[in-house]
Amino acid sequence: DTSGIKVVEIDGRLQSDGTSQLGADNRAGMAVVLDLLADWEQWIDSRRNYIAVFTIAEEIGLFGAGNLDLSEYNVDSVWVFDSSKRPGAYIQVCAGTYLFTATFKGKAAHSAVNPEAGISAIKVAAEAVSNYQIGKIADMTTINIGTIKGGYANNVVAPDCEVKGEIRAISEERVLELLDETERLFRETAQKYGAKLVFESKKDFAPYAHDSDSKIVLRMEKALRDAGLEVTALRYTGGSDANVLNEYGYPAINIGIGAQNPHADDEFILIEDLIASAQIARNLIQNK
Amino acid sequence: DTSGIKVVEIDGRLQSDGTSQLGADNRAGMAVVLDLLADWEQWIDSRRNYIAVFTIAEEIGLFGAGNLDLSEYNVDSVWVFDSSKRPGAYIQVCAGTYLFTATFKGKAAHSAVNPEAGISAIKVAAEAVSNYQIGKIADMTTINIGTIKGGYANNVVAPDCEVKGEIRAISEERVLELLDETERLFRETAQKYGAKLVFESKKDFAPYAHDSDSKIVLRMEKALRDAGLEVTALRYTGGSDANVLNEYGYPAINIGIGAQNPHADDEFILIEDLIASAQIARNLIQNK
Repeated sequence: DTSGIKVVEIDGRLQSDGTSQLGADNRAGMAVVLDLLADWEQWIDSRRNYIAVFTIAEEIGLFGAGNLDLSEYNVDSVWVFDSSKRPGAYIQVCAGTYLFTATFKGKAAHSAVNPEAGISAIKVAAEAVSNYQIGKIADMTTINIGTIKGGYANNVVAPDCEVKGEIRAISEERVLELLDETERLFRETAQKYGAKLVFESKKDFAPYAHDSDSKIVLRMEKALRDAGLEVTALRYTGGSDANVLNEYGYPAINIGIGAQNPHADDEFILIEDLIASAQIARNLIQNK
Repeated sequence: DTSGIKVVEIDGRLQSDGTSQLGADNRAGMAVVLDLLADWEQWIDSRRNYIAVFTIAEEIGLFGAGNLDLSEYNVDSVWVFDSSKRPGAYIQVCAGTYLFTATFKGKAAHSAVNPEAGISAIKVAAEAVSNYQIGKIADMTTINIGTIKGGYANNVVAPDCEVKGEIRAISEERVLELLDETERLFRETAQKYGAKLVFESKKDFAPYAHDSDSKIVLRMEKALRDAGLEVTALRYTGGSDANVLNEYGYPAINIGIGAQNPHADDEFILIEDLIASAQIARNLIQNK
C-alpha cells in the first residue's frame, strides 16, 4: 500500500515529500525482482530453475521466510535484496539474535502504611539493569534493553517489573553465553532483595557466515564485479530473511540495494543504485 | 452498588464470601452516618447545626472532598469516618503526599547497527532509581517508585523512560525538600549520560496535625472515652478526605471504624466495631 506516500525525485534521489517514510525498505527490493521478472526471457539460462519469492512480515520477526517451505526445490543459493548498504556491498557474515524477557517478582504492599512488608520489583530491576552492560560490548556483539515496565500505582510497592532485551553476536554459542551471564546477574540481584526472577529467551534469528571461498560468495562477488561495482564483503549485526534461510540450510546472502535511512521520514534511494541493483540481479541469474 | 457481593456473618464479623471485596471501605462509614440520620431527632442538640456529607471519588484522588464548598457554613469540626483502624483510634497527625513524574529523555538508535549513536533512557533511569532510597526513610516519611515504563522495541535504544512515584512526610516543607533532592539526583544521572530530564510534581494531599490540646482533639477524645473505648491518637501516612478539608481550613479528623484489610477479598468488619462507631458518631454530635 503506497497510498499517502508522495514520491519526489531530487538530484537523482527518490524520496518521500518528507511527511512519511518512502517505504524503499523494502519496496526497492521488490522492484528489483519485479524488474527481473518483466523481461526474464531475454536473459534467462534455460538450464537452470529460478524461484522468485516475496516474503511477508520480515520486519516483525522474519515470519514469511520462517514459514517458507523450499523442500520441494533443490535450492543452491538464495539472494535477498534487502540490505540498506549500497550496491557492491553484501552481508557475508551476519550476527544472530536472541530475545529475552526478565520478569522480576517482588511483593506488593502499601507504600506508605507498611512499605517494609513489600519488595519493590522496580528497585530490584533498576539495580540489575544499572549493573548490566549494554551497547556494543565487542566487535559485532551488541546488547540492548528494549523495554522496561513495572508497577501499578504510586502508592503500591511494585510487585513486578518486566525487562525485555536482545543479545546479538556472530556466534550462537557466544549469544547463549551472554544470555547465561545476563540471567545470572539478574537472578543474583533478585535474590539479594528476596525477589524472584522469571527469565525466558528465544531465538529471533540465527547468525550466518559464508567462507570467502564458498560457492555462494564467489558467485556474489563475480556478479558485483561484472556490474562494475566495488565489492565490499560485510560483517553485520542487522538481520534479514537471509538469516532464517541459511539456518534452514539454504545458502543465502543479503545484498545491499541502497535504500538509505530506512524507517525514517528522510529515507531515500539513488536511482543509480536501483539500476545497479537490477544489474546485480541479472548477473546473479546468469553466472553460476 | 453492592450487587454481586455476598455478605456473610461469621463469628461476629461481616465479610464477603471470599470472591470479592466486602466494600466496608467505605460503606461502613456511610452506614455509620446513615444510622445517625435515621433517628437524629432522638439525640440532636437543637442549638447546633450539622451537615452530613457523602463524598465521591476519595480513592482516586479525594476529588469529592476537594470540590466540596463549605463556605456558606460556619464549620468548626469535620469528622471523617474512614480509617481502617479500630474504634478508639483516630488520626491526629497525618502525612502529606506529593506525586512526581520523572521522564528521562535519551536518544533512539538501532541497538545493533549503531548503538553508540543512542542514549538508553532505560539505562539512565535504572541507574537513577538504583541510587534512590525508597521505603520508610524516616519516621512518618516514605518514598515510593510506583511505576516505570520505557522503550519501544527490542532493537531500539530506548529514547525515553518514565518513572512515577510519591513522597510522604508530616511536614510539607520536608516533602518539598525530598522532591528537590529527588530531582537533583535524577538530573545529575541524566546529565552524566547526556540525557535530559523532565521532572514534574504535584500535591496529592496536604499533611495535617492537630495539637493534643486543640478543641477538635479534646472533643474527639471525649467522644471515644464516653463510648467506653481505649483512646489512641495516631500519626499516620495514609490520606483521607480529612487531609483536604484541613487544608481548606476546616479542622477535620479521620476516625477509626475498623473496616479491616481494605481493598482485599478478605476484607471484614466486626459488628461490635460498627456499633462502637455508631456510638462515637452520637457522642461527637452531642458533646461540644
